[in-house]
Amino acid sequence: MSLTVRQSSVAAFETALTAFSLILDKAAAHAEAAKFDPAIYLTLRLRPDMLTFASQVRIFCDNAKNGSARLAGVEAPPYEDTEATLGELKARIAKTLAYIGGLDAAALEAGTEREIVLPTAWGKAKMIGRDYLAHVALPNFYFHVVTAYDLLRYAGVPLGKRDYLGAVPGLQLV
Amino acid sequence: MSLTVRQSSVAAFETALTAFSLILDKAAAHAEAAKFDPAIYLTLRLRPDMLTFASQVRIFCDNAKNGSARLAGVEAPPYEDTEATLGELKARIAKTLAYIGGLDAAALEAGTEREIVLPTAWGKAKMIGRDYLAHVALPNFYFHVVTAYDLLRYAGVPLGKRDYLGAVPGLQLV
Repeated sequence: MSLTVRQSSVAAFETALTAFSLILDKAAAHAEAAKFDPAIYLTLRLRPDMLTFASQVRIFCDNAKNGSARLAGVEAPPYEDTEATLGELKARIAKTLAYIGGLDAAALEAGTEREIVLPTAWGKAKMIGRDYLAHVALPNFYFHVVTAYDLLRYAGVPLGKRDYLGAVPGLQLV
Repeated sequence: MSLTVRQSSVAAFETALTAFSLILDKAAAHAEAAKFDPAIYLTLRLRPDMLTFASQVRIFCDNAKNGSARLAGVEAPPYEDTEATLGELKARIAKTLAYIGGLDAAALEAGTEREIVLPTAWGKAKMIGRDYLAHVALPNFYFHVVTAYDLLRYAGVPLGKRDYLGAVPGLQLV
């Protein structure tokens, strides 16, 4: 059996997004224990010229939503960037999961050969779906997930690789 | 045409590793301009309980090497963790690229159904190749690449998304 697009895109996004929702719960618990307002997380940045934590979360949600939609050949709904609390960021993750979970399986599989047109860091570009998935969609998604994770680690939230990887499908301890 | 394992693993690692080698050149240039010893980068950490920059680079090289080898059903050679300069880290990336580039294409494709046994954050585990690729190998690899990138950004190296994504195969400006 060869690799499916769904498994390499939607399923990977689902595992990571679900994991990050639980990471946000740990961030909330840490704020409560350390007695600071959890909304402070949303404005954290590693450097003044880097994006805030809230932006990192919004962007990885949009990477998952738009990346999956492009592979499936449909237009994803835009989400407004208005979240002001950890709970609202969790809601965005949940909304993203619901959206990508509903994409048509056959349309996703046809995505390997689909011509994708998208804005990139170089300007508007086109590429074939399989290159888009491996070299743009997945690296971009993990870029923002990991930077958000690193911001929470930097803020003192007790997290480790198990929190990041989440519930790995098919993993059996031996 | 469906997705190939090679494209989803080795080719993705190749793009990111090649990009990071150029990122190390920018880090060297920044150290020279700011007049500090570039070897200082190797000991940087975001927090005392996180790994150093040198470890992040070694680990993402090993993620690429071992991940590709496991999918191909072969035992990868261990690399010693002795790098003391940016140039030596570049050499490790080059050695990793040479190794993964030489893996047998048919053996890699058979990796989707291969039972992979590996150490994980939960303990020794087994899983089928396609789950390993999507939910462990790729997320782990990008975890260490992005954390290394974020450490350099934190250190003031002028980097952006184009440096991270590198030379994206098949991307055409329109």
